[in-house]
Amino acid sequence: MASSRSTVESAQGVVEAPALPEGTFEIVEEVEGLLAGVGERAPEHLVGPATEALTSGGKRLRPLLLILSARLGEPEDEALLKATMAIEVLHTATLVHDDIVDRAETRRGAPTTVARYGREIAVATGDYLFAETFMALAEIGDPRLIRAFSEASQGLAAGELEQYRASAAGASDADGENVEVYLDHIRMKTAGLFKTACVAGGTLGGLSLRQIDALATYGQALGIAFQMSDDIMDLVGKPGLMGKGIGTDLVEGTVTLPIIFALREGDAGTMRRALVDPNPSPEVLEAAIEAVLATDAIARTEAWARGEIDAAFEGLGLLPGGPEREVLEAVAAEVVGRSA
Amino acid sequence: MASSRSTVESAQGVVEAPALPEGTFEIVEEVEGLLAGVGERAPEHLVGPATEALTSGGKRLRPLLLILSARLGEPEDEALLKATMAIEVLHTATLVHDDIVDRAETRRGAPTTVARYGREIAVATGDYLFAETFMALAEIGDPRLIRAFSEASQGLAAGELEQYRASAAGASDADGENVEVYLDHIRMKTAGLFKTACVAGGTLGGLSLRQIDALATYGQALGIAFQMSDDIMDLVGKPGLMGKGIGTDLVEGTVTLPIIFALREGDAGTMRRALVDPNPSPEVLEAAIEAVLATDAIARTEAWARGEIDAAFEGLGLLPGGPEREVLEAVAAEVVGRSA
Repeated sequence: MASSRSTVESAQGVVEAPALPEGTFEIVEEVEGLLAGVGERAPEHLVGPATEALTSGGKRLRPLLLILSARLGEPEDEALLKATMAIEVLHTATLVHDDIVDRAETRRGAPTTVARYGREIAVATGDYLFAETFMALAEIGDPRLIRAFSEASQGLAAGELEQYRASAAGASDADGENVEVYLDHIRMKTAGLFKTACVAGGTLGGLSLRQIDALATYGQALGIAFQMSDDIMDLVGKPGLMGKGIGTDLVEGTVTLPIIFALREGDAGTMRRALVDPNPSPEVLEAAIEAVLATDAIARTEAWARGEIDAAFEGLGLLPGGPEREVLEAVAAEVVGRSA
Repeated sequence: MASSRSTVESAQGVVEAPALPEGTFEIVEEVEGLLAGVGERAPEHLVGPATEALTSGGKRLRPLLLILSARLGEPEDEALLKATMAIEVLHTATLVHDDIVDRAETRRGAPTTVARYGREIAVATGDYLFAETFMALAEIGDPRLIRAFSEASQGLAAGELEQYRASAAGASDADGENVEVYLDHIRMKTAGLFKTACVAGGTLGGLSLRQIDALATYGQALGIAFQMSDDIMDLVGKPGLMGKGIGTDLVEGTVTLPIIFALREGDAGTMRRALVDPNPSPEVLEAAIEAVLATDAIARTEAWARGEIDAAFEGLGLLPGGPEREVLEAVAAEVVGRSA
């Protein structure tokens, strides 16, 4: 099968990925058009907010996972497009509501919906996107997809609050510093949607139940590793770029896995000064980042992420070979920064 | 068929309704148990808010409409219970998010979720209930139901914002005083869910497409008339109770149909004083109510509601006769306060 070279933007930044299988990029492009359409046909005063949220430079990683998983088998074109659109719309709905809960000011370098339009518009925009998700699934008509997306939605709703609680409690609440709490949270949020993308794809591709299970394991583990990698980058910066991380999680009081490890091993007082202060000075923030980096928290988190990726690889042997499986393997390898 | 007497709480207050068909009340009771279960299995910190929202004295009118519509035919027990639960869970999700958008302090005499727990918990609670709705529908597995509920959800999301805009614009924006804007809003909100309840019921009952269409017309018209009746009661008080209405809509700046009519015909200045003031004094509010009642706005709104009910009755002839249809007729008659 011929294939065209392309790039995949992974958690580690834009990297040269193995060639995307033929036709994959075209499907992603078509989905971009569908996403724009969701924004355009929004209720009158939600057109702007919905369009901006849907087209603000998301990496489209979940759509890509869904497409690759589906094309391991033989999906029906129309259903594949709709499901791929739906996973990104659901993801976007969640981001919009998450930003209300977290009172986030910016995302991807732009003002959040809630910051720009207020909570009223942000609640309604998220609700509209949520409704659109299930509308697209209703058109596909496969109850297994609706179940997968509903389960993901339950987790996302539960996860919204966990993040808020952890932030509200700040670093003073031992609960927020618990590895299990962190894992529960990222399982419900990032990993839940990655898993749903893979399961929905495998279902549409007509794969066997065992194969769909393998995809579920892969998606879940990939999502966990992806989030850990993201949490590391917030502290050490993106590979290939000069300078340190920006410490957003420390500023927002979000206790990620590397911070949990660092709090236990290092100068917790310095870290807590940044965590509890909603507006830490650059000096306080830099000192906190330094304190984290002085421990082996990053290495421990990386090791954990690599363990997750090993788990992700385990089931892939059950899947049909070919360019799609190769890219799924490469994406996983890329997340932990190792060569495929 | 034997039947047991019962009461239905309509928009006009608790009234003696025609006997509910045998078994209806038992289904509603079972659904109450399912609703409590949705609250109990909510994510840890949403159990309280979800349970309170689900069990805070809702009239269960949408569940009743769904059950009656379904039992015009022969629904499968399990699917009927789940769909009936789902319609009330979706309704509740909407109320929780509406109250964030409207910054409402109380509902049904108790603090709203947002007032009691803050917007973070309220956003997450609504999202959880929304996810639960589609989870229940996924278990039923009928794409027609998922489509009906998704469409209703789209309208509800759009309607959330309309109400906010009308309120934010207050009485100074001609947009908010437009009959079409009012009708669009209540079609999306109250009427959309009433229609979905009836359509979902008819679908589960295995009725013909023509019969389901008739139920859609009935549900939509009933919802519009119900909302108009509610808007009238806010100004004139509940039948059987002494005194005037409490004028909540005037206080909140919500321009309902009777207020639109009254603004055109009567002492608009006095009404606007209450509409634009977020905390009008009792004197200002009473004067505004008097100004509305001095016009024929109530009579005109009642006439419109009766017209809707006539439309609702039109299609009922297509439906199978029996106690279910009799109650559907009685509910419609009751909304506009006339005997069946």
